[in-house]
Amino acid sequence: MDWGTELWDQYDIIEKHTQSGLELVEKYVKFVKERTEIEQNYAKQLRNLSKKYSLKRSGKDEPECRLSSYQSFLDILNETNDYAGQRELIAENMMMSICIDLTKYLQELKQERKTYLMEAKKAQQSLESTYKQLDSSKKRFEREWREAERAAQYAEKTDQDINATKADVEKAKQQAHMRAHIAEECKNDYAAQLQKFNKEQNQFYFNDMPLIFNKLQDLDEKRVRKLAQGYILFSDTEKHVMPIIGKCLEGITKAGTNVNERNDSMVVIEQNKSGFERPGDLEFEDYSQGINRASSDSSLGTPKGPMELLGKNRSKNFWIFSKRSKLSPSTLPPFSTPPAPSPANGPPSPKFGRDPLSYCLKEINKTVKPRISSFRTLRRSVSQQETSYCDRGLRPSSSRAAQEEVTTEIRGNLQRVAKGSRSE
Amino acid sequence: MDWGTELWDQYDIIEKHTQSGLELVEKYVKFVKERTEIEQNYAKQLRNLSKKYSLKRSGKDEPECRLSSYQSFLDILNETNDYAGQRELIAENMMMSICIDLTKYLQELKQERKTYLMEAKKAQQSLESTYKQLDSSKKRFEREWREAERAAQYAEKTDQDINATKADVEKAKQQAHMRAHIAEECKNDYAAQLQKFNKEQNQFYFNDMPLIFNKLQDLDEKRVRKLAQGYILFSDTEKHVMPIIGKCLEGITKAGTNVNERNDSMVVIEQNKSGFERPGDLEFEDYSQGINRASSDSSLGTPKGPMELLGKNRSKNFWIFSKRSKLSPSTLPPFSTPPAPSPANGPPSPKFGRDPLSYCLKEINKTVKPRISSFRTLRRSVSQQETSYCDRGLRPSSSRAAQEEVTTEIRGNLQRVAKGSRSE
Repeated sequence: MDWGTELWDQYDIIEKHTQSGLELVEKYVKFVKERTEIEQNYAKQLRNLSKKYSLKRSGKDEPECRLSSYQSFLDILNETNDYAGQRELIAENMMMSICIDLTKYLQELKQERKTYLMEAKKAQQSLESTYKQLDSSKKRFEREWREAERAAQYAEKTDQDINATKADVEKAKQQAHMRAHIAEECKNDYAAQLQKFNKEQNQFYFNDMPLIFNKLQDLDEKRVRKLAQGYILFSDTEKHVMPIIGKCLEGITKAGTNVNERNDSMVVIEQNKSGFERPGDLEFEDYSQGINRASSDSSLGTPKGPMELLGKNRSKNFWIFSKRSKLSPSTLPPFSTPPAPSPANGPPSPKFGRDPLSYCLKEINKTVKPRISSFRTLRRSVSQQETSYCDRGLRPSSSRAAQEEVTTEIRGNLQRVAKGSRSE
Repeated sequence: MDWGTELWDQYDIIEKHTQSGLELVEKYVKFVKERTEIEQNYAKQLRNLSKKYSLKRSGKDEPECRLSSYQSFLDILNETNDYAGQRELIAENMMMSICIDLTKYLQELKQERKTYLMEAKKAQQSLESTYKQLDSSKKRFEREWREAERAAQYAEKTDQDINATKADVEKAKQQAHMRAHIAEECKNDYAAQLQKFNKEQNQFYFNDMPLIFNKLQDLDEKRVRKLAQGYILFSDTEKHVMPIIGKCLEGITKAGTNVNERNDSMVVIEQNKSGFERPGDLEFEDYSQGINRASSDSSLGTPKGPMELLGKNRSKNFWIFSKRSKLSPSTLPPFSTPPAPSPANGPPSPKFGRDPLSYCLKEINKTVKPRISSFRTLRRSVSQQETSYCDRGLRPSSSRAAQEEVTTEIRGNLQRVAKGSRSE
């Protein structure tokens, strides 16, 4: 069963079917193209989302960087950005492996189909031309045969006419003979033309056209096969990045499990602990026993009591609860005594005054650690970029320039970190 | 190590830290909400894409429905639509399990935090009030002690004054005695107030405030824990539908592998085959042997030759290649002879004329099969709806009304199919 045999008289159908086949491929390409646009748009929105919240996060609230709940949110934003990158990859790969490939193939298909349809037209024109020759040859034979018949009848009539001269009879007979001869020649010509036409018609219906129709069928089947591969690629493209998307999701889960609420509480302590000890009992000031203070400010030592406890009057320089009391080594020189403590009831010396080593450790945590963590982030992004180069099938050698650029950047950062540590 | 002990003097820090913690939760909720909007938008675009190409497909080109290349494209559109449904599910589940849940939790957190901060304020006010009492009590003692001292000095001076009367001396001594007595009472009051204050201050710094700060720490850690769960849910929601998305992708792959190009070629034959045999040789019309046709249209039988082969003049009623020659049982009664064949050179009887059974089968394929396939589609969509109800956790009983509605629709369709088959 093939088109050449079964659809020998359905040229229109074959032309129309192969045309609508090409249109289906075009429609599928358009469909995939629109899908890639949706995918690109989706990825872009995810990227913007990630960027928007990353920007908001950093900047003003630096001490929060060390809290795992903030760090994990940052990780989620990074993973969301990577996720968006994978969606972009889906769009790009669909565009490359389906749209561009099928569009190119479509051009070849169209050209080949056109060639076959032209061949069919040519074969038909040739048969038409032969048919016309046959028709005119047949018509001439019919006409000449009628003329010959008429001439024969005239010759017979003349022969039987008693008034006719011998010359008349002879002339009529000669005429009839000639006409018969011509008719005979036309008959032979018609017979030859018929034979030629039948041979050509047979060639047309049993060889040429079936061959062309079968070529068109073959072309159409190849188109369907290619289209089916395009269908499979539509899901394969996404299946291909599914494991990496899975890794992004795993990364988010990991960010969630990395959150350590106990640790965050400890970080808050570490960052904000003043080192002062809680105030002890006020002592009894017995004026009757001769305690007569020079400064008669008539109050219980320098501290104004618990008035400032909940930070109502932050502007006053006071030691309990308010901002100024926080251990701030940049304004407060280490190893010095706390500001204006009353001899009897003032706050005790802060702990760092007794333990210079722990003070230094604290300082290192404050200034160097964030830089180390930013260096880690940088290193991670480098390894991610490398992975992404590999994913896109770029050869390591081709990305060497990019690697070197990043490495230089890391070196620069390391130098800046080192410089920063020295200068502080 | 807890806030109550280590951050006893960092009320401001704790207030600020817990506030920015709540803000982080709010920010995360906002982030997830925006992600669900992106997801919804993505799903909507995929749905529209699927719908757009589904509408375009059906309608005008009905015979193409039976071609696997078209059928598979339709399947891909359906799978894309299902895929979109899964993305919608991600958005809905994120909204439910993260945004709504965390927002509700946030209200509770805010209320609880407010309560603790109020407790702290109260404790502070109470201590402040006691301190004020102590301060005024101390000031009175100091004042009274000075008065008593002055009175004693005056009594002494009077005693040594030779001009003073005994009465003066006595009066001054009495006065000094009374002042000393008052001062002594004030001293006792001050001592009592001091004891009271020290007890209360101790209670404040070593019990009340640490308790409140530890409650705030506990609250903050619970917040971080809950937020971490929200982080994990962000990926879990998507992980949960990954297998179903995988099935959609599998469905697309299956649609691709279901394409059978050979079969499609056969369908084209089945749908368009005329059943006519290819024309044989034209016979020789020997006018010289007395073949003299009544109708002298001077041409080779009714067929006008191959002039119409490539469908140039479709308007003419002719038997080769043009549309009218196609086996069309609705206009052409079966078992009749083909239209106006020439006795000698016309086309042979179409095959269906010899095989009524195959003609009937063809008719059934044309009219009943598409209805069966549309019934299949209907049934599939029903089972998909059921699956989707189950996925959303609806109890089967709750969707019974919906099921019955669909079942009624199926019955209606079956009746229409049966009716259609009878009426044709």
